[in-house]
Amino acid sequence: MEKKEGEGEGEEEQVVNPWTVSAKGGGKIDYDKLIDQFGCQRIDQSLVDRIHRLTSRAPHVFLRRGVFFAHRDLSEILDAYERGEKFYLYTGRGPSSEALHLGHLIPFMFTKYLQEAFKVPLVIQLTDDEKCMWKNLTVEESQRLARENAKDIIACGFDVTRTFIFSDFDYVGGAFYKNMVKVGKCVTYNKVVGIFGFTGEDHIGKVSFPPVQAVPSFPSSFPHLFGGQDNLRCLIPCAIDQDPYFRMTRDVAPRIGYQKPALIESSFFPAMQGETGKMSASDPNSAIYVTDSAKEIKNKINRYAFSGGQDSIEKHRELGANLEVDIPFKYLSFFLDDDAKLEEIRKVRVEYGAGRMLTGEVKQLLIQVLTELVERHRRARAAVTDEMVDAFMAVRPLPNMFN
Amino acid sequence: MEKKEGEGEGEEEQVVNPWTVSAKGGGKIDYDKLIDQFGCQRIDQSLVDRIHRLTSRAPHVFLRRGVFFAHRDLSEILDAYERGEKFYLYTGRGPSSEALHLGHLIPFMFTKYLQEAFKVPLVIQLTDDEKCMWKNLTVEESQRLARENAKDIIACGFDVTRTFIFSDFDYVGGAFYKNMVKVGKCVTYNKVVGIFGFTGEDHIGKVSFPPVQAVPSFPSSFPHLFGGQDNLRCLIPCAIDQDPYFRMTRDVAPRIGYQKPALIESSFFPAMQGETGKMSASDPNSAIYVTDSAKEIKNKINRYAFSGGQDSIEKHRELGANLEVDIPFKYLSFFLDDDAKLEEIRKVRVEYGAGRMLTGEVKQLLIQVLTELVERHRRARAAVTDEMVDAFMAVRPLPNMFN
Repeated sequence: MEKKEGEGEGEEEQVVNPWTVSAKGGGKIDYDKLIDQFGCQRIDQSLVDRIHRLTSRAPHVFLRRGVFFAHRDLSEILDAYERGEKFYLYTGRGPSSEALHLGHLIPFMFTKYLQEAFKVPLVIQLTDDEKCMWKNLTVEESQRLARENAKDIIACGFDVTRTFIFSDFDYVGGAFYKNMVKVGKCVTYNKVVGIFGFTGEDHIGKVSFPPVQAVPSFPSSFPHLFGGQDNLRCLIPCAIDQDPYFRMTRDVAPRIGYQKPALIESSFFPAMQGETGKMSASDPNSAIYVTDSAKEIKNKINRYAFSGGQDSIEKHRELGANLEVDIPFKYLSFFLDDDAKLEEIRKVRVEYGAGRMLTGEVKQLLIQVLTELVERHRRARAAVTDEMVDAFMAVRPLPNMFN
Repeated sequence: MEKKEGEGEGEEEQVVNPWTVSAKGGGKIDYDKLIDQFGCQRIDQSLVDRIHRLTSRAPHVFLRRGVFFAHRDLSEILDAYERGEKFYLYTGRGPSSEALHLGHLIPFMFTKYLQEAFKVPLVIQLTDDEKCMWKNLTVEESQRLARENAKDIIACGFDVTRTFIFSDFDYVGGAFYKNMVKVGKCVTYNKVVGIFGFTGEDHIGKVSFPPVQAVPSFPSSFPHLFGGQDNLRCLIPCAIDQDPYFRMTRDVAPRIGYQKPALIESSFFPAMQGETGKMSASDPNSAIYVTDSAKEIKNKINRYAFSGGQDSIEKHRELGANLEVDIPFKYLSFFLDDDAKLEEIRKVRVEYGAGRMLTGEVKQLLIQVLTELVERHRRARAAVTDEMVDAFMAVRPLPNMFN
């Protein structure tokens, strides 16, 4: 469940699917165009306000700042919630690497907020089967990474009484497999070629996978959690590159007698080198990892974080910074919770024709914010024992999951 | 796991795959050509003699009469057996109908003989997932049919201490699913199109299925039976239309570190209307079912069994019967165990320029043989309780399976 670099950049149209995220002509992703193309809706202020009202708590910074910017049927979920009906959350991760970077944490930080705010159960799928197939990892290595990643996920603070984490290699079977077959029956090969861009030289493991990611959207895939509650609705927080899976899922759902899952979708977290750059596993300097030391964080930000400041102090004071491309400011807009402070930085960076705050100062603040965040995550992860992983991953009922 | 009528008969080439069995120009299947085309070997008399020697018992009538006529690596299985190494058997059925006909019983009657003769364990796969997808049955109906068919299979006399019967909807998952993913990684879409003739309008459930039928060939798919015995060889008795699945499996096996399964393959059991006819679920008179009454068997054989006798008694006495197309004789060659008696019938039907035995007399004998067989099966099936089905299908170790 992560984006991958594809071929065919440059002159090509923008491509966004679960394995390829590339902007047109090497520029920035056009999210308005993506919304049009995918047929989802933009999250507007009134929807954010409504969530605020319904949950009686401040919307998460990712919601206030438009990181989660698009949705499908979110209003219907809120209508149902307002009537006293419950729903469940579903998110996931493809365990392809040992260490997560900040971009990987975003859906989990946001999902934790949703779980707390709405007091609802959550299923988290670790697609070790997918990564075994796409990244050519062994089954054993994919499973090991799934468990390691589960520790990082648990460290985000999920409530074990409301959260079921599962790996596909462990959990596929029974009711889950029956739903995979039901979904598979409704999707032609031509259809998945249209949605995912598979070719005849792709292996059939890939062609078989979309139903695996589809069926956690259906409560009947989890009889130990939702037995008999076949109409329980599902809300999926994810990055928008996962939308193709759930377009397919929503298309199939009514044909097999199930509710369509609702979605709340985020934009992509930019690489250190700027939004046109890529976070790449082969370039550790393109991202901040949750395993980075304070010193590494400091060095990476100082050396690699792309600045929107002008070339000279004189020019900078004259024109102000271009915050559209300024990575330190972008990163702060994700992780600095204080709205007033962020707005103050924005003003002194660009307004008054002044640019009074230099890049170095913003970077200093970002180093402080991220060092704290990473240090907090590291402490939380170190406290996650194997027994806790087993507890989250046990196939068990969650009797108080809606309380 | 059964053959289906395909389109494109008449002028077309012969097509044999798990869903289509059609001869060239509406004639008979050319088995020599099939052996060439598939690249398997013919079972010759020396191989039959060797099995006789190794098992110290008369080879099954299906082996003596060439019903099982082709193989892959059977000699290697026998070499290993002679060295004191063991193997296991794997066969299966796609549960698409309530009542089995005689053709359906053939692989099970033969597998029972192999199990007894070699004293080896056996896994029987009920592909309820396949039939749910291909026949558009509901999950529940496919599972019900799987259980009903299991009763017919058990009635063939399998040894519960050496036999594990499983339905895919129940058993897919864990080690079995891991092997499905390993196989899926090694087979491109183009490859399955070449092997199975899928088109872009086929659903991805079909494209996903070949690994499901492949992986029972690998002992690691059954950790409760063969834990740690990853090099145990597998022998698959099946009709030759299933060869495509196992060509694929054998191609993949060494790439994932597994032994290739060996095969012993049968020709097709002919329809009542003759070998160019089809046994069709929509025409109950095209086959004898194990649920047919004595009266139905008598009527069907008398009315519909295609005769190789000549048009008039005079012509018949002059030319003799054409046993190449004579269904009563064909059926007797499957089910009349007495070699001397069958040879006598052959002689008096065709030799001496005589044709002294008329079709009516052969039909009488066939009615007697099949009525007894069906009656015996009916009694055996009636004695199969739900508890016995549960016992055969329980996921359990079989501690004495090689004794």
